Amino acid sequence: MRHCESCKAGLEQYCYEGNIGTYNGNDVHLGGHTLGGYSAAITVDEKFVLNIPDNLPLDAAAPLLCAGITLYSPLMHWHAGPGKRVGVIGLGGLGHMGVKIARALGAHVVMITTSPEKAADAQKLGAHEVIISTDPAQMKAASKTLDLLMNTVSAAHDYNAYARLLRVDGVQVLLGVPPTDMPPPSVGRMIGNRLTLAASTIGGIRETQEMLDFCAAHNIVSDIEMIRMEQVNDAYERMLKGDVKYRFVIDMATLKAA
Amino acid sequence: MRHCESCKAGLEQYCYEGNIGTYNGNDVHLGGHTLGGYSAAITVDEKFVLNIPDNLPLDAAAPLLCAGITLYSPLMHWHAGPGKRVGVIGLGGLGHMGVKIARALGAHVVMITTSPEKAADAQKLGAHEVIISTDPAQMKAASKTLDLLMNTVSAAHDYNAYARLLRVDGVQVLLGVPPTDMPPPSVGRMIGNRLTLAASTIGGIRETQEMLDFCAAHNIVSDIEMIRMEQVNDAYERMLKGDVKYRFVIDMATLKAA
Repeated sequence: MRHCESCKAGLEQYCYEGNIGTYNGNDVHLGGHTLGGYSAAITVDEKFVLNIPDNLPLDAAAPLLCAGITLYSPLMHWHAGPGKRVGVIGLGGLGHMGVKIARALGAHVVMITTSPEKAADAQKLGAHEVIISTDPAQMKAASKTLDLLMNTVSAAHDYNAYARLLRVDGVQVLLGVPPTDMPPPSVGRMIGNRLTLAASTIGGIRETQEMLDFCAAHNIVSDIEMIRMEQVNDAYERMLKGDVKYRFVIDMATLKAA
Repeated sequence: MRHCESCKAGLEQYCYEGNIGTYNGNDVHLGGHTLGGYSAAITVDEKFVLNIPDNLPLDAAAPLLCAGITLYSPLMHWHAGPGKRVGVIGLGGLGHMGVKIARALGAHVVMITTSPEKAADAQKLGAHEVIISTDPAQMKAASKTLDLLMNTVSAAHDYNAYARLLRVDGVQVLLGVPPTDMPPPSVGRMIGNRLTLAASTIGGIRETQEMLDFCAAHNIVSDIEMIRMEQVNDAYERMLKGDVKYRFVIDMATLKAA
């Protein structure tokens, strides 16, 4: 670790020797597994310490380190910005960060959701437009209008339906690993429009600090609901139902009380 | 046609209004369908006329207009060149052009084939290395060693097996549309290594001329077998069996005799 080509390029998440996840990774120093955000304390090498800018509240900044960088990294990698039409598929923990960051990058932001009731929230978060993907007329009208798609859906689904929204040379980035197989790619459509199916996971330390500084400059944090440690099981059940706007954060001061 | 964003960018093959294929396309001027290489004569707008450089023999240059540009365009688009390790999957009409052009671009060229008997030919054509993809040991040894894959296989197949050969940020370009569904993408591997699945078809007129000039400068033509018109049905049967090195070309002077 930290000497392969990926690590040298600041892409520790793609380490050729395998990274150690902050949560549930093999702890090579102490044995067992890492505890991530459930840790009471954590010891890391100074190269892996990040600075949370002073103007970001710690609670709402916490999800930036996962959802925030998960969207920031592919948005930067695929050049989201002024003149680009960026679709964000799914309005959850990842998706709401995608809308905020893509908007702050200067892109034209389109939320794509199965839920008509989420349209107003998406616009409040910064989406210029909303497409209800269960409405064939809306999907058809938006055919070949987007340059870049951030696909935050974590269940298996027909990503090819979203590819129809892409212009020539459009890119769809998969951000979730579904537990079951996805459908086959529509190769004909890909070839006929030079479409790209891409993928991305979190970001390296250098880019994560860049993301934090970017969020600080644009006053971006995650929308959170703070819970006490003893609520964690209820929160998990609610999360599975999508009943959270948009990330739960545990108040670690409640750990000892639990 | 010729006024959409793709056409203005020289990407007529990705015309938003639909291109007209030289072969078996709807002939909007005369009705019926276009006859491509079977035409005795063809009338096109001057913007669609190409110059075959004098040093290229017409017979062996003919397949450059299909197989040549089909490989040249994605090799250029995805920046094949010095320092890049480019794999070409499949040694047929497309694949043998991929080897020649990638080699001339200065890339390190690796032929990936199911057929051990094709290894010597691949090296003669310019491949620096050959991987026999049916040999698990060779495939494992080549894991994460390539930057770019030109996948010329036109039947449905497990393209995920080739993705294992890609380094972080590697790109696999699909060049054939299989008649049946491909397997699902291995999203986990894609996300874990920021891999890209891309696709491409032929090239625009500007890039096709650039390709012809490039081939002229590097003395590249297709390896062909010339046939008479009356042999076309036999040639088709042989082509289906892969019994051609690597493209049949019809001597059009034999058309009247047939």
